[in-house]
Amino acid sequence: MRFVVIMAGGSGTRLWPLSRRGTPKQLLKIVAGRSLLRLAFDRALTLVPPERVLIVTGAAYLEQVREEVPELPEDNLLGEPVGRDSLNACAWPAAVVAARDPDAVIAQLTADHLIEPVDAFARALTEAFEVAETVDDVLVTLGVVPTSPHTGYGYLQRGESLGGSACRVAHFKEKPPFDVATRYVESGQYWWNSGMFVWRAATFLKQVATLEPQVHEGVLALAAEPERLAELFPTLRKTSVDFAIMEPVARGETDAEVVAVALPIQWRDVGGFESLAELLGADAAGNSVQGLVVSLDACDNLVLNTAGNDRLVAVVGLQRMIIVHTPDATLVTTFDQAEKVKALVGTLAESAPTFA
Amino acid sequence: MRFVVIMAGGSGTRLWPLSRRGTPKQLLKIVAGRSLLRLAFDRALTLVPPERVLIVTGAAYLEQVREEVPELPEDNLLGEPVGRDSLNACAWPAAVVAARDPDAVIAQLTADHLIEPVDAFARALTEAFEVAETVDDVLVTLGVVPTSPHTGYGYLQRGESLGGSACRVAHFKEKPPFDVATRYVESGQYWWNSGMFVWRAATFLKQVATLEPQVHEGVLALAAEPERLAELFPTLRKTSVDFAIMEPVARGETDAEVVAVALPIQWRDVGGFESLAELLGADAAGNSVQGLVVSLDACDNLVLNTAGNDRLVAVVGLQRMIIVHTPDATLVTTFDQAEKVKALVGTLAESAPTFA
Repeated sequence: MRFVVIMAGGSGTRLWPLSRRGTPKQLLKIVAGRSLLRLAFDRALTLVPPERVLIVTGAAYLEQVREEVPELPEDNLLGEPVGRDSLNACAWPAAVVAARDPDAVIAQLTADHLIEPVDAFARALTEAFEVAETVDDVLVTLGVVPTSPHTGYGYLQRGESLGGSACRVAHFKEKPPFDVATRYVESGQYWWNSGMFVWRAATFLKQVATLEPQVHEGVLALAAEPERLAELFPTLRKTSVDFAIMEPVARGETDAEVVAVALPIQWRDVGGFESLAELLGADAAGNSVQGLVVSLDACDNLVLNTAGNDRLVAVVGLQRMIIVHTPDATLVTTFDQAEKVKALVGTLAESAPTFA
Repeated sequence: MRFVVIMAGGSGTRLWPLSRRGTPKQLLKIVAGRSLLRLAFDRALTLVPPERVLIVTGAAYLEQVREEVPELPEDNLLGEPVGRDSLNACAWPAAVVAARDPDAVIAQLTADHLIEPVDAFARALTEAFEVAETVDDVLVTLGVVPTSPHTGYGYLQRGESLGGSACRVAHFKEKPPFDVATRYVESGQYWWNSGMFVWRAATFLKQVATLEPQVHEGVLALAAEPERLAELFPTLRKTSVDFAIMEPVARGETDAEVVAVALPIQWRDVGGFESLAELLGADAAGNSVQGLVVSLDACDNLVLNTAGNDRLVAVVGLQRMIIVHTPDATLVTTFDQAEKVKALVGTLAESAPTFA
């Protein structure tokens, strides 16, 4: 049977004070009152019924996830006691799903991008499921057809075509400099590495057994004895699924292979304020505004007031500023300086942790 | 007997959202937790006991004034139902005081500047009281010895010396352009017009009777029948004491004269954010900060958080910005654009009056 696993971890300090340690980016209701996690869950429901969706998140976010996705069966909610990177966010649910259905095929999806249109996403995932179900010993990776020479994404180089959009993956490439990214995109041979995958649980776990035996043993034990979570999970080796599994398999270090399927979608990161402003759209003066805000002679600003209608934010004579007003914390910065917010939140975590 | 009248009206929109229609500038606790009104009252107590201090303010502020100055007898608190400019803020209390003591001498003081040192202020007022008590038919105006060619103040030209610092006033001058103000200051013949006066109640009321008979009749009626306040006060002609009384008297239009006495003090307006920042002082990075604020790579900003210690204001990468965070309204602007705040508050008064 087909399953979907949605990964929703991370702390999203780049969107502070909207996102906090206690409210990661995927749980913020930033898209017309809905969170990215909710949108990811709704996309999953185009593929499988709710009882075959699992969400893996931080233990601290479990309650918020339950509220956001009340349809999710309690057994399908996996809360990591500590962050152990993406390998374990793939391997643990794979072991859990394999224990329920040894023939399970899993779409391992992310929740930190805005994906449109949803029907193109559903068609691509269906193709990926079919490849994973019909080809032996294959790990399918979803490659986003690039729309720009983005330097913030990894790329994958397409090899031999296998019919449909599917093709072998010749190489995975780290985040490239701009000129290299431009060559990649112009060549037509490269897709963005989406970090989303489809695989048979058994095939994936076999690769883990070969390449990361300690993790394999740990997640099988976790699936058999969930009550040992707090004891076992922190012992798992912290590493990414790309580095530990996908790249070695693509290099031929096991008897499996990596196949890419095209994901022909608009893939928008909302990891920072620039992209959030784009997502919200702008008024005639170029201001992206949410909540109770008044402005005079202000243009090209992002002004968010999530503190409710009994609080007003007034901006006068500003340009390219970011103002984020939440119930307990207010940030004022500029688009040019916003990358420093992460450093500020780092110091806050020590000096004033309630606000971090 | 000597009396002091403190004028504490005005709405102070230039300090919005610190000051509001409901909380004028003089009632803000901006000087180490004390308001300008409280400081003015404490200065008055260096001259007379509390039962001989009167405060004239807007009816809407009566409760706040009572809280700020609990020593003030209830009969000494005059609440104007509507603003009728400074002539009536002088004439009404003069009539009230004259009804108690026909020989009363009144120091009519403002509360919207920071005045230091207080002992120099007390000495100057004592000199002014003595002039008003010993010279017949005189209105004493207090002239601040200028420290800069300020273009925001009116000036008075000093005439014949009368002993001590006292001298006749040759002319009152409107706010001058910078080059004229520079000439004034360099000549040594001009003082700033402080808007503070000392006069016998009877002498002042006689001038009002001559120059503004309708106002004279009205304030005598008010003093005799305080219960008619709401009916009578709005009928008083709205005009300034400078325009209606001081200037005509200085021009010789009555049989009285205007004498100036020096007020050798530091006289700091806190009418705007620039002066408020100066008042607060700055840290090593040039930031003037009050309340719970964290900053990174920020210099020469004014950041005020009056919303309490469960709210944080964070500024990242800013320069010469003004951020004022109050419990229900947050302003973000720049020092260069702050004069537009008044216009914004004007529109707020119509669109969102609770915040104005």
